[in-house]
Amino acid sequence: MTQPGRNVKLTIEYDGTNYAGWQVQPNGTGVQEVVQDAIARITGETAVKLIGSGRTDAGVHAAGQAANFMTDSNIPAGDLVHAINSKLPDDVAIVGAEDVPADFHARYSAKSKTYRYSILNRAVRGPLERSRCHFVRKKLDVAAMREAAKSFVGEHDFAAFQSKPDGKSSVRRITKLDIEANGEKIDISVAANGFLYNMVRAIAGTLIEVGLGARPPGSITELIGSRDRAAAGPTAPAHGLCLMKVEY
Amino acid sequence: MTQPGRNVKLTIEYDGTNYAGWQVQPNGTGVQEVVQDAIARITGETAVKLIGSGRTDAGVHAAGQAANFMTDSNIPAGDLVHAINSKLPDDVAIVGAEDVPADFHARYSAKSKTYRYSILNRAVRGPLERSRCHFVRKKLDVAAMREAAKSFVGEHDFAAFQSKPDGKSSVRRITKLDIEANGEKIDISVAANGFLYNMVRAIAGTLIEVGLGARPPGSITELIGSRDRAAAGPTAPAHGLCLMKVEY
Repeated sequence: MTQPGRNVKLTIEYDGTNYAGWQVQPNGTGVQEVVQDAIARITGETAVKLIGSGRTDAGVHAAGQAANFMTDSNIPAGDLVHAINSKLPDDVAIVGAEDVPADFHARYSAKSKTYRYSILNRAVRGPLERSRCHFVRKKLDVAAMREAAKSFVGEHDFAAFQSKPDGKSSVRRITKLDIEANGEKIDISVAANGFLYNMVRAIAGTLIEVGLGARPPGSITELIGSRDRAAAGPTAPAHGLCLMKVEY
Repeated sequence: MTQPGRNVKLTIEYDGTNYAGWQVQPNGTGVQEVVQDAIARITGETAVKLIGSGRTDAGVHAAGQAANFMTDSNIPAGDLVHAINSKLPDDVAIVGAEDVPADFHARYSAKSKTYRYSILNRAVRGPLERSRCHFVRKKLDVAAMREAAKSFVGEHDFAAFQSKPDGKSSVRRITKLDIEANGEKIDISVAANGFLYNMVRAIAGTLIEVGLGARPPGSITELIGSRDRAAAGPTAPAHGLCLMKVEY
């Protein structure tokens, strides 16, 4: 077999509700394998290896997951989008494709990622947003959440917001943490140079506690300093989380 | 049996994806019967008759459907919301309940309804919005759609936008027809004193033709005057439609 000569980057949107996450899992279908299979059907290459920017957990969505694969196919990138989409189920779609240099690697080349955590904050649960928003019944104090959010921004050791530590550095740099309130909906947008496992969901769970008045906004700096996962808030549910974009 | 002494109005939100519509249908479950069954389980009254403001078709959603039922239950309205919700599936929820006079009738007392028709307008289909937005690939001219929208406002005979005419008057008064464009999403909001069968979907299908350049914005007045359903645009798909509110 010749060395495949072409590296293609894909931008992928998916509704994570019916998946075990991005990665192929023993106990469920991964989005990665569904896309790999669709690519294989279009290019005729059986051993497609799709490299994602990172895993997303079961139930987590993506509006702009990034991935790349090597191929010998000469189908133009723009045509690949529609061709691959024709082989994908309706909860996954390629939203962009482009040729990238041979050394581009969706995971190692990533400079920044942006996630959004969405909350439906009202008296009763919401059927229309049930798969996209985490429902919080008690009124959240958005001003307090915004105040708390400021303390997360910058380079910190986020060990207090990491599930399953892997022994590697837990220092990351959060470049943005915005909270947008629009009627009953609250969106927490977080951008960083990288995220620890469950980091956004632990930050969301902590900010919700601030919004509920259970944790003072001024306590976040000390909490980060504690490096103690048990001292932070709970990991908010997966279905409120969406990977918005990956920058290179 | 004594005459039930109390009339309760409910506001109901539902994701219509998995229903045959509001009304009980021989070939599928109606939202009405699901809510009726939940009420019966809470009040213990077996012959609950829930009167909706009107039918919604299979796949059509509601953020604010209105309905009423007579009951002898003395459970306060606020408690009814949570009690009934505890017996409903996650794609249906009561979002409000209030006592209303005995002569209140969700259908006959309605003064105005507002529907929203949502379009995802971009190059590729959208997994995250697939059950809520009608996907239109070709770029729509929103300015032309807004221009056309003006001609619908006011009292007109909307026979050209009615499926299955029933022999009754097809004159209705549209009080608002707004088109909001937000990135890839276009929302058409229509308020009227009443709607003919499939009227919003026929108006949406016609406005989409205007947006595609297939129909001049200035042609709507003549189209309305024709009273010819075949001269108007197609009935846009059900899943883009949502009943937003009913006013009394």
